[in-house]
Amino acid sequence: MTAIASINPATGQTVADVAEPTSAAEVARIAERADAAASAFEALGRSFRSTLLRTIADDLEAAREAIVALAHRETAIPEARLNGELTRTCYQARFFADVVDEGAYLEAAIDHAGDTPMGPGPDLRRMLVPLGPVAVFGASNFPLAFSVPGGDTVSALAAGNPVVVKAHGSHPALSLLCYDILAGAARKCGAPEGTLGIVFGTQAGADLVAHPAIRAVGFTGSLEGGKALMAIIAGREDPIPFYGELASLNPLIVTEGAAGARPGEITEGLVGSVTVSAGQLCTKPGLVLVPRGAHGDALMAQVRDLVGDVPAAALLNGRIQASYNELHAALAALPQVSTLARGPEAPEQGFFASPRILEVQAEDLTGAELQECFGPSAVVVRYSPESLEHALSLLPSSLTATIHAEDHETALVEELSARLGPLTGRLIFNQYPTGVLVSWAQHHGGPWPATNAQHTSVGATAIRRFLRPLVWQNAPQHVLPAELRNETTDIPRRIDGQLRLPSTVPA
Amino acid sequence: MTAIASINPATGQTVADVAEPTSAAEVARIAERADAAASAFEALGRSFRSTLLRTIADDLEAAREAIVALAHRETAIPEARLNGELTRTCYQARFFADVVDEGAYLEAAIDHAGDTPMGPGPDLRRMLVPLGPVAVFGASNFPLAFSVPGGDTVSALAAGNPVVVKAHGSHPALSLLCYDILAGAARKCGAPEGTLGIVFGTQAGADLVAHPAIRAVGFTGSLEGGKALMAIIAGREDPIPFYGELASLNPLIVTEGAAGARPGEITEGLVGSVTVSAGQLCTKPGLVLVPRGAHGDALMAQVRDLVGDVPAAALLNGRIQASYNELHAALAALPQVSTLARGPEAPEQGFFASPRILEVQAEDLTGAELQECFGPSAVVVRYSPESLEHALSLLPSSLTATIHAEDHETALVEELSARLGPLTGRLIFNQYPTGVLVSWAQHHGGPWPATNAQHTSVGATAIRRFLRPLVWQNAPQHVLPAELRNETTDIPRRIDGQLRLPSTVPA
Repeated sequence: MTAIASINPATGQTVADVAEPTSAAEVARIAERADAAASAFEALGRSFRSTLLRTIADDLEAAREAIVALAHRETAIPEARLNGELTRTCYQARFFADVVDEGAYLEAAIDHAGDTPMGPGPDLRRMLVPLGPVAVFGASNFPLAFSVPGGDTVSALAAGNPVVVKAHGSHPALSLLCYDILAGAARKCGAPEGTLGIVFGTQAGADLVAHPAIRAVGFTGSLEGGKALMAIIAGREDPIPFYGELASLNPLIVTEGAAGARPGEITEGLVGSVTVSAGQLCTKPGLVLVPRGAHGDALMAQVRDLVGDVPAAALLNGRIQASYNELHAALAALPQVSTLARGPEAPEQGFFASPRILEVQAEDLTGAELQECFGPSAVVVRYSPESLEHALSLLPSSLTATIHAEDHETALVEELSARLGPLTGRLIFNQYPTGVLVSWAQHHGGPWPATNAQHTSVGATAIRRFLRPLVWQNAPQHVLPAELRNETTDIPRRIDGQLRLPSTVPA
Repeated sequence: MTAIASINPATGQTVADVAEPTSAAEVARIAERADAAASAFEALGRSFRSTLLRTIADDLEAAREAIVALAHRETAIPEARLNGELTRTCYQARFFADVVDEGAYLEAAIDHAGDTPMGPGPDLRRMLVPLGPVAVFGASNFPLAFSVPGGDTVSALAAGNPVVVKAHGSHPALSLLCYDILAGAARKCGAPEGTLGIVFGTQAGADLVAHPAIRAVGFTGSLEGGKALMAIIAGREDPIPFYGELASLNPLIVTEGAAGARPGEITEGLVGSVTVSAGQLCTKPGLVLVPRGAHGDALMAQVRDLVGDVPAAALLNGRIQASYNELHAALAALPQVSTLARGPEAPEQGFFASPRILEVQAEDLTGAELQECFGPSAVVVRYSPESLEHALSLLPSSLTATIHAEDHETALVEELSARLGPLTGRLIFNQYPTGVLVSWAQHHGGPWPATNAQHTSVGATAIRRFLRPLVWQNAPQHVLPAELRNETTDIPRRIDGQLRLPSTVPA
C-alpha cells in the first residue's frame, strides 16, 4: 500500500509521508470503539458537550500559528484566508455549543395523557436523540472549516455522536494535527475513549461507510465521490442517512438595469467571487447570465480587464489541476463557446491554474456548457429577453442562485425569484454567493445535485442531520432524559401543542 | 392488462372491476399536471391550505356511511374500527390544518445584517418550502388513515405539495371513492387542477416514482416493496427523498415483577394487542419476552385460554393470508419453536386466519424466529436472567418497544430502557403499542428496518418530510414570502438567534 503523502501544491513536491492507509481491520476497530463510546458520550449530557466544543475551539485557537503554517504549506491557500477559516472554525464549534445549550434543536414536546377526539390518549414525550457514530469526510477546499475540525464534526459531536473522520488526502498532515488537538480536548474534558477517531485512505473511507457501527455519513466533495458512497450505503444491510454536498453551478444573473447602473461594482464583485480561493469554493458563481447589448458588452470588457490582472494560483492538488485543464479544454472546444478572458500564464511548477472566462450566446446553449468546473473560471451566457427562458430552462439545481437587479425592476425580480427559487437553497440579491456565514438562519444545501437531502451543512440546523426522534410513552420520570421531565423549564418545549419559551421560574 | 378488481376478503370473491391499470403515458400526464399545479398551489398560501384540509375532513365526514360500508366490504375490517379510523382520518386532516395555521413547522428564522466575528454578515431569512409533487402509496391495513385520504396525503398537502396517490390494490373502489371526495373538495376550494391525482397498479406506482416531476415519496408497506421503490429512486438521475415505514417486530418485555403483579391485565392487553385488526397493525407486538418460572407459566396459561376464544378473522387479501400461513408453517417447523396457543379453526372460504402464539426458550434463539408476521400471531420468548441478554442482542430495530414492569423495579427499568431505546422510535411503559395517537409529540418511525429515515409518518412533525429549507439573502421585502417579512408577528420565528412566540401586537 502506498503511504499517504503530504504534498506542497505550490511545488508539486512530496514533503513527507504522513501515514499508512488505515487497514480494514483498523477501520473496524475504530468504528467499534466509537460504537462502544456512544451511549456513555450521550449520557454525559448537553452541558458536557458544549464544554467540549468550547474546549476544542480554545485549543484550535491556541495552536493557530502551527495550524495556519501547516495548512498553507499543504494546500497553498493564502495565510490570510486560512486565518479567517480558522476563526470561522473556532466560531462554529462555539456556535454549536450555544445551539446545544439553547436546546430548541431537541424539538422537545410533551402531550399529557387525556381525552382526545379519538378516545383517551397516553402521555407522550418526544425529543431528538443522537444517531450513534458518524463518519465525516473532510473536504479538500476548506481544510479546517469542512475538514477534521469542521462543521460536520462539531455538529455531530453537538448532537451527541462519536465521530470518525476520513482525512482528506490533500492535507493529511494538517488532518492529523487537528485530530490530535480534538482528541486532546476530548481527553482533557473526560469524553469516553473512542469519541473521536480518524482513518486515512480511500479504501478506509469506503470500509468506514460500510461498517455496521456507523450510523450516518457527512460528506462534502464531488458528485462521483458522493455517488460511490451512496452505492456502498445502498448495499448495507441497514441503509444509513448520507448527507452529501455534491455539485453546484451557482448561476448569477445580471439584469439589464443592474448592468447599466452598477457595472463597476458588479464586475469587481463577480471576478472576486469567481477567483477567490482559486475558484475552489462550492458556492463559486460558475455560470453568469449577462444581457446582450451595450451595457452587457461594457460589463464584459471590464471583466476581461480585471481577469487579466488576476495572477495564477496554486490549486489544492494535481487531480484538481488536471480536471480543470481537461474540462476547460473540452468546454473551449465546443463550437458555440469562445474564450472571453484569461489571466496571466500559470507557472510550470506545482499545480497552478490561471483564471478563464468563457462566453456563449443563450440561444446556442445545449446544456453541455453547464458543468461545475472547480477552479478560477466561469461561463458567461449572453442573453436577450427572448433567449433568457431557454437558458433558465437548462439550469441544474444549485446551492445558490444570485440576482443582480435594480429596485425599480420589481416585476422582473419577482419573476426571476419564482424561477430560481425552486432550483436553489439560497437566493441572493445584489450580493455574491461565496462566503457562507455560520448563523442560525443560514442554509447551505439545495435540490439534487447540490445536496442529496433536505438539510444543511452550515448553520444551526446542520445538527438535525445527526439526530432522530424518540418518544417515551407513559414513562416514569426517572427513566426520562432531563429535558423531558416535568420540572424542566430551561429549554423551549411544546406542551400539549403550545410552544413555550424557557422560563427561569419553575412552572 | 388485468383490470384492478375489488375483492371481498370475507368470501374471496371478486365483486367488481374498478379500474384499468394506469398506463405509463397516463402516469406521466398526471405527474406533469401535478408539477404544473405546484407553484400555483404553493402561492395560494397557508390559510388556503388549512381551509382545504378542513373541507376535506368535512366532506369525508359527510360521506361516512358510504365510506365505512365500502371499506368494510373491501377490507373485512369491522365497521366499528372503520368508524374510528374515519374519525381519526378526519381529525388528522384538521390537525394538519392547525399545524399549518400555527406556523412553527416553517422553522422561520431571520438573521439581520450586521457585524459578526467573521466580518459583516448579510440579511438571511430562512424557512421551509414545499418540495413539489409527492407520490403517496396507500397501505392495505389502514384503508383510510394510511391510504388515499391518510396522513401522508394530508401532511404533504399541508406542506404545500400536490399529491399523486398510488391506490392500494386491496381497496381500489374505496380508494376511488375517497379520491373523488378529496378531488371534489379541492375543486370546491379552488385548488389548481392537478393538485390531486391517483394511479392504479404496481407498474403505475413504479412509473410514478421514476417520473422526474415527483419530488418525494411516502410509503407504508412491506420491506420488499420499500426496497423495490428505493432501487427505482437510486436509478433516477436525481434521487429523491423516500419515506418508508417498512417492517417492525415491536418487542414487548414483561418483567418478573409485572408477571407476578398484573397477570390478568397483561395477558388481556397483550392478546388484544396481538389480535386486534387481525394482527395487521404495524405496531403489533410480534415478539413477547416472558420470564421463565411460575409467574411466566401462569401468564402463558392465561394467554392460551384467551387466544383459544379469539375467533378467526378475515385478513385483508389472499397474499397476506398466504404469507401468514407460509411464515407460520416455517416458524413452527423450527425445532426450537413450539406452538403455545391457537384459536379456533379458520373457515375455508375467504381469507381467514386464526390466531397463533409460538414459544421458544431465549437460549435457543437463533434469530430466525425474529421475523415480522403480518396477522394475529406472536412469538413468546421465555427468558431467565441469564438468557435475557442473548435475546435482546438479537432484536432488530422496531417502531415500538414496550416494557411491562413494576414501580419498584427501578434499576431494571432503567437498564431495559437504555437497552431498548436505541432500537426503537417509541418506548412504551405498561401500555400496549397498538393504537398510535395523532398528536404533536407523537413519533411513528424507528431505525432501519422500521423506517428508512429519521422522520415520522404520524403526528405534527410528519410535515417535515415534504419540505426543504430555502434562504433569501439580502432580499427586497416584496420578494419575500409573507412569513419572512419584517411586519409578520403571527408565527413563531427565530430572530437573530432568539426564538420568539407569535404576538398579536405588531413589533
